[in-house]
Amino acid sequence: MTLEYDGTAYAGWQIQRSRKPKSIQGVIEKTLSSILQEQIRLTAAGRTDAGVHAVGQVANFKTDSGIPAEKLQRALNGLLPDDIVITKIKEAGLDFHSRFAAKSKIYRYTILNQPYPSALLRNAVYFCPYPLDIKLMRQEAYCLLGRHDFQAFCAAGSGVKSKIRQIKNISVSKKRYRLYAICYMLIIIEIEADGFLRNMARNIVGTLLEIGRGNPIDMKQLLSLRDRTKAGPTAPAKGLCLMEVNYR
Amino acid sequence: MTLEYDGTAYAGWQIQRSRKPKSIQGVIEKTLSSILQEQIRLTAAGRTDAGVHAVGQVANFKTDSGIPAEKLQRALNGLLPDDIVITKIKEAGLDFHSRFAAKSKIYRYTILNQPYPSALLRNAVYFCPYPLDIKLMRQEAYCLLGRHDFQAFCAAGSGVKSKIRQIKNISVSKKRYRLYAICYMLIIIEIEADGFLRNMARNIVGTLLEIGRGNPIDMKQLLSLRDRTKAGPTAPAKGLCLMEVNYR
Repeated sequence: MTLEYDGTAYAGWQIQRSRKPKSIQGVIEKTLSSILQEQIRLTAAGRTDAGVHAVGQVANFKTDSGIPAEKLQRALNGLLPDDIVITKIKEAGLDFHSRFAAKSKIYRYTILNQPYPSALLRNAVYFCPYPLDIKLMRQEAYCLLGRHDFQAFCAAGSGVKSKIRQIKNISVSKKRYRLYAICYMLIIIEIEADGFLRNMARNIVGTLLEIGRGNPIDMKQLLSLRDRTKAGPTAPAKGLCLMEVNYR
Repeated sequence: MTLEYDGTAYAGWQIQRSRKPKSIQGVIEKTLSSILQEQIRLTAAGRTDAGVHAVGQVANFKTDSGIPAEKLQRALNGLLPDDIVITKIKEAGLDFHSRFAAKSKIYRYTILNQPYPSALLRNAVYFCPYPLDIKLMRQEAYCLLGRHDFQAFCAAGSGVKSKIRQIKNISVSKKRYRLYAICYMLIIIEIEADGFLRNMARNIVGTLLEIGRGNPIDMKQLLSLRDRTKAGPTAPAKGLCLMEVNYR
């Protein structure tokens, strides 16, 4: 199934050991299990952090139930809290695994780059009132394209062995969004990769923000140093959104 | 000053007699009074209802303080809750009254017209999963253009004497907003008038929704009948947003 959610109120996708605070996975598993009257376990393509949103998360589960997909979608959307929505649901092969089968994922980070914040966008953007050198950000972002060891952008304590990932696309763009009395100045950073290390997207954005503000960080050097302490800070979760998971 | 706010958490613009639940006017007056160290009273162009949003509300106040406008804006935005933002502030003549001086106001109502709701837009749109005849809605909306007695769209108990207002522009448009894995189907109704009676915008939208769903309501007849009970129900507040106030 494909999911849209507002991550603001959740401790992230994954169920926490303490089961508190609530996770998106936990809330959906509980609802699914009660509808299908069997214990359901969900697997998601991207285990988004606390506060991170999604418009194209993909998750799968196994069931013995023969309930039609469309009926299940309606039942789920009727019972789930209104900050989680199932936008699509269909049957897949028994061997389908939403994470292992994914060829790439696209994350978008949105920065509100103007002197004053926004009331209506406050949970979906990171507000940065300082001027940013977008050309320099773009130039350094392009150095990340291709297959690299992304250890410099990986959170400490991540269990994965290989830190090698392939960034297939990266873009930094300015978008002026005028709406009557208001004009939002947005900077949008999009990253498509075959996989993301823990905090990788937010650490890349945090480093690009440092570069944009005039801190001379050399992305190529950073990749070769593989030293997390030389990169920028982790950008706040609320600006990040999982846009799409590609399976071919 | 020009204001953007998310009305979800408020009992509307106007201070309630009981002072509880909180109003947008009350929250800003309290913050302004504490910054300026004098009792401040705010006047707004539109007294928006509970749950109604704004991107272009205009409000004015009188003060003896000589604090520069830009400095006051920064101080206010630093102290106000993050669902209220001052987007502009400038000095006006002593006789300026944000409501009486307004030549027109523009309200926008957004309907999410698709089979499933949206997690990210949930507080800014009204979710309507039924098919709507947009051509018929548009045709009947046009009958409201011009100067009419809008009693049929005025909430009971409104204190105003004259129910005559002029609708200068009205539009009903479909907007497909595709964003990677997601596609939002929106119907946007915009109304510009020289003034709005209590609940007038939401009652017009509620009537247009009835028309769109196949209920044969004749707008022209409704205007001449001046009977609130013959119009549609009041559309939910969360789809409504005050876009702009025009002063010339």
